[in-house]
Amino acid sequence: MIVNRKGEDVRRLARFQTPVREDLQRFRRRYRETLESGHRLIDRIVAFVTRTHGKGLRPTLTLLCARLGGGEPGEAAIRSAVIVELLHEATLVHDDVVDEAPQRRGLQSLAARFRNKVSVLFGDYMLANVLTETLAARDLRWLDILAETARRMARGELLEAAHSRRLDLTEEGYIEMIGHKTAALFGACCRMGALTGGLTDRQVDAAGRFGESFGIAFQIKDDLLDLFGDGALMGKPTGGDLKERKLTLPLLSALARSSPREARRIRARIRRGVGRRDVRLIADFVHRHGGVEYAERAMAARAKAAIDALEELPPSRIRDLLAEMAEFAVARTR
Amino acid sequence: MIVNRKGEDVRRLARFQTPVREDLQRFRRRYRETLESGHRLIDRIVAFVTRTHGKGLRPTLTLLCARLGGGEPGEAAIRSAVIVELLHEATLVHDDVVDEAPQRRGLQSLAARFRNKVSVLFGDYMLANVLTETLAARDLRWLDILAETARRMARGELLEAAHSRRLDLTEEGYIEMIGHKTAALFGACCRMGALTGGLTDRQVDAAGRFGESFGIAFQIKDDLLDLFGDGALMGKPTGGDLKERKLTLPLLSALARSSPREARRIRARIRRGVGRRDVRLIADFVHRHGGVEYAERAMAARAKAAIDALEELPPSRIRDLLAEMAEFAVARTR
Repeated sequence: MIVNRKGEDVRRLARFQTPVREDLQRFRRRYRETLESGHRLIDRIVAFVTRTHGKGLRPTLTLLCARLGGGEPGEAAIRSAVIVELLHEATLVHDDVVDEAPQRRGLQSLAARFRNKVSVLFGDYMLANVLTETLAARDLRWLDILAETARRMARGELLEAAHSRRLDLTEEGYIEMIGHKTAALFGACCRMGALTGGLTDRQVDAAGRFGESFGIAFQIKDDLLDLFGDGALMGKPTGGDLKERKLTLPLLSALARSSPREARRIRARIRRGVGRRDVRLIADFVHRHGGVEYAERAMAARAKAAIDALEELPPSRIRDLLAEMAEFAVARTR
Repeated sequence: MIVNRKGEDVRRLARFQTPVREDLQRFRRRYRETLESGHRLIDRIVAFVTRTHGKGLRPTLTLLCARLGGGEPGEAAIRSAVIVELLHEATLVHDDVVDEAPQRRGLQSLAARFRNKVSVLFGDYMLANVLTETLAARDLRWLDILAETARRMARGELLEAAHSRRLDLTEEGYIEMIGHKTAALFGACCRMGALTGGLTDRQVDAAGRFGESFGIAFQIKDDLLDLFGDGALMGKPTGGDLKERKLTLPLLSALARSSPREARRIRARIRRGVGRRDVRLIADFVHRHGGVEYAERAMAARAKAAIDALEELPPSRIRDLLAEMAEFAVARTR
């Protein structure tokens, strides 16, 4: 039987989840319970939003880090997984509004089903629940992680929106922006999880650095897949970022290496609005100027930094699995 | 010289602000500093949002309550005023998005100036700053107030949106909804302010009850002004609530007292969409069924409850001023 690489990807992620399979089930139950309000109208929206769930990458990381100390995850660990996933989902719900995205994970988005209005308000409701859950730990360290993460995520999202208006992002600005927008939350997953696992402050910091580097590598890979799809699978690139005028690392490095005249032409094309033919043309431009290799090197360096950070943690099967996850983040095909 | 009642209103609010005039100046400076990011693109939005400010009713209440113990407001009091105003403004910024309001306080709204996208994200940025500022007090009691308030506000906003779709709000549901949407924040203003003023737990609770009742009276008055304007001034009603399918107390009580047939006809009219002629017709319907008197009685009862709550607080000029503010909230003409 021939197994294509996508099939392998899914099985590989499932393997990372093996040690926390039961924790993830508890997490899913608690996630829904947290949002339920006892009010019929609100709970209809909750049922709609929780009818499906993502791959659970963030809760998986959180729950794995909660096991780094060798103990079984308690209620605090489950709660920390709920917090990070709620924060992530609230961002998605608000993103659906602002981009007028009709679909999310192949299903109708909240914004399309109920109006924009309800999506903004429901995102705010999720954020309020994040705060309540974090506060329930009665530990200012949890709140410090949350506040820092929320501030960075908001800053990253604003920077992305501002730069997409002006098309003036630089490579340096890109790394800063995805650090805030994506990596901060992965860092928070690992810090919070580790905190509940009884690790030392120094080890919690190391787990946070792992998550942060993991997150940057993960986002660079996402952006590469958006522009090129997966060559081996003949997966089609969506070019979604280009259509939203988001300049990502492979393109930014190509722009920096091409002639000023060519760079101006590419920017003008993006400014006018990008169609399917333009996506192919720009992908070709990026290839010609070594933008793919550049982004892959940057990504590999972050994955290595993530794995290096793990050295401060006690050796264990879980730690090895985290290292494999960092490799998976850059090797995955979707 | 003839002074109209609007002129009197403004002077009366200014009089309440006299004891905290300098505190309010410190508050405004701190408010802007809190939002500034050091990033040019973000600070352009900050400058836009802070180019004007509201009447400052919430910071005024907060700073007055901070003086209830007899001391001078310190940094903590100024910070608590910043927190409640940020939370209020974040809600307005998100409301501007969802209602596609082109104006706010007679000026172009953020959503109209930058796109919806930036408004949702900037609202989130303000909320992240609320959390950072609250956490800076390193006092879980502040965070408890914030979490409870944020949860109630989000719940109130969601309930309002859900009921406006279905036109199925009841009088009881209305009081619950405005309790969450509006009064929770007024309660938080007074609790937080009182907390910084060195009052006992019991007195802080009393201040919170004052704010909560004040807020309900305040919202009922807002809703009356929306439907009837101010008769004495020939101020025109805007009927904005009806246009957004929001049923408010005067109308709900009239609907409950009219014949089922007439009530059905009014609801059908609102469902179809309300024009200027409909606003007059519905206002007349409310009048005929005693909806104005009903709402005024409910409002007066809440103002009295607010003043009663003050009895647990040490007698002072500030306490008297708060009592006058509760009277002002129901007597104001705009």
